This record gives sequence, structure tokens and C-alpha cells, in this order.
Amino acid sequence: MPRSGEDARRRLQQAALELFRERGYEATTTAEIAAKAGVTERTFFRHFPDKREALFDGEEAFRTALSDGVLAAPEDLNPMGALLFAFRSVEGMLEDNRAFAEPRQSVIAQTPALEERMRTKTAGLISALSAALRRRGLDEGAATLAAQVGMAAFSYAAGAWFADPTPGLDAHLTRAFAALHDLSST
Amino acid sequence: MPRSGEDARRRLQQAALELFRERGYEATTTAEIAAKAGVTERTFFRHFPDKREALFDGEEAFRTALSDGVLAAPEDLNPMGALLFAFRSVEGMLEDNRAFAEPRQSVIAQTPALEERMRTKTAGLISALSAALRRRGLDEGAATLAAQVGMAAFSYAAGAWFADPTPGLDAHLTRAFAALHDLSST
Repeated sequence: MPRSGEDARRRLQQAALELFRERGYEATTTAEIAAKAGVTERTFFRHFPDKREALFDGEEAFRTALSDGVLAAPEDLNPMGALLFAFRSVEGMLEDNRAFAEPRQSVIAQTPALEERMRTKTAGLISALSAALRRRGLDEGAATLAAQVGMAAFSYAAGAWFADPTPGLDAHLTRAFAALHDLSST
Repeated sequence: MPRSGEDARRRLQQAALELFRERGYEATTTAEIAAKAGVTERTFFRHFPDKREALFDGEEAFRTALSDGVLAAPEDLNPMGALLFAFRSVEGMLEDNRAFAEPRQSVIAQTPALEERMRTKTAGLISALSAALRRRGLDEGAATLAAQVGMAAFSYAAGAWFADPTPGLDAHLTRAFAALHDLSST
């Protein structure tokens, strides 16, 4: 896509997020999102199938990057170590997107239709992580368990990072994976 | 509800499950479910708002039982110990329901609309477990993390138990919670 297309796409995402925050998701129309972004509604639909998807761009790229991260992890790492390695490998991607991701998270938490979509996205990430762990030799049950636990730790880290970015995402990830041990030992 | 109402409800659930397996979820109508159960369609709608809900009966009772289990766990148990205690407290309920639950699980795994509903159910169970853990003194982040990890271990145990009921659900639960440690130590 040419640069102007990418610019419009980013403006549409930002406009959707702002309108969802100001008026609520249900009350916002694709026409309003397009107008705020300074493009036609037709351009909106060239980028996204519906208003919901304007908040879920880049899902496939993120899934692929996480999956590649698991496969790139040193062979001697245990499953949780490989997952932590994978989440670390996408830190840059997440840091670049923080200004958008943090308010996006609040809108999702307040909107059942977006929460449902988010759960589908999370399930897709867990599937991809699990498939990558199986390629490292884990059986299916253990791979799914590890992927779910790793995703829970990542969500914990992301929530803590949104609340307090000072220590950096890397420190929050380290704490989250360490917190898993504390749950069984306090 | 009088006994005859409970009987009809159970017949409707069984009929729905069998039709979903034979013909697929999308192709099955509420009229067909009612006919197979030997009741009118009006009776179907007295019990369930739509065909999907015929597979999700008892959700609230299960959620309450799990939450009560966490609160009933001995005070000195750590969070994962309290969750294992809670899952153990509903073993009888799950064992009584195994003949229904096992084929139900296969139908859900093959039907996106049911998978989505299942994810909403799971999210509700995680919320309830997390709220119960907070009442035991855990902060919100740790409680959500523990509830997600515990639910992942429970799903692992349930899957293994559906595949092989011989060792019993209790043994599968013990193994699943032990498997959490292995993920960080192999």
C-alpha cells in the first residue's frame, strides 16, 4: 500500500479510537470515523470491513512475530523461558504502539462487543504460540497449557505497564513471569 | 421448577446435543430439538432463549460452586492451592455430567459460534475465581493471573479426563497443577 494509504489507515484507527472513547462504540458510525479522519466512507471500507476492526489492525503481524519469537528462542530454554523470549522479541513493536494501545485497552474493557473480539484475538495468539511450542517438541496438551499461562503472564505485564510505564515493559514482563512462581509458593 | 419441567429440560439438552452432532449446529432448528425431546417449541423457549443456550445450562451454578470452593479453601493455602481445592470441590458435579460434557466439548470445538460462547463462559468463570481470590487478600492483578492460570490447568485436566477417564478426574487435576511447575523447570 502506498504511503498515503498507510497514513489514511492510521488516521482512521486514531479517529475510531477517539470517537469510541468520546461517544461510545455503539453510537459511533463508520461515516463519522471517516469524516474525522478526513477521508470518504468508501476509503474506510477499503481499509476495514467494519468499525470494530479499526481497533484490531496488525493482529496477524503480531501473531506471526510472537510465533517466530518462540521458534527463535535458544533450544535449551524451557517452555516458559521460550515464551518470555518471544514476548521480549515484540517489545519494540509494543512500545511503538503504546500511545494507541493503552486507551484502546480501556475502550475494549468497557464494550462487550469489543471484549468478545479481543477474546477471539487472544485465542488466536494462544493457538499460534501453542503451535510454535509443539514445533519445539512439546505435546499438544502441554503446549496449550504453556501458551495459556504465558498469555496470562503477558496480559498481567501489559496491564501493569499501562498503569505504570516507568520501569519499562521488559521489567514488567520479568516481574510477571516471576509472579507465576509466587502463586504456588506464598 | 416441578420435576416434569426438569425432565423436559434435560431431554431438550440431550436432543440439542445429539442433533448438533448429527447435522451440525447451524442446520439444526429449535423446532427439531423440541420435536426430538417430545415437547412443543413453546416449551423449548420456556427453558432456553435460543438453541445455543441448550448447551450452556448450569453455568451460574458452576460459577457459584467454584467461587464458594475458593472461599472455603483453608486459609494457609497459596493461590494455586486454593484454586485446586475449588476445582476438587466440583469434581462430583463434573463426574455426574461427564456423559454429556465429553461429546458437548467436541461439538463446541467444531462450531465457531459455540466456541465464542464458550470463551465468554470461561471469561465469566475466571472473573468469579479472581473475585474470590481477592476476598482472600490477593491484589487484582495477581488474582486475575492466578485465576487464568488455574483455569488453564483445569482445561488441561478436563481434556485429559475426556480422552482417558481411567485415572479419574482428581488424578488428572493433580497432574495438571503439577504440570504447571514442569513448564518452568524442564
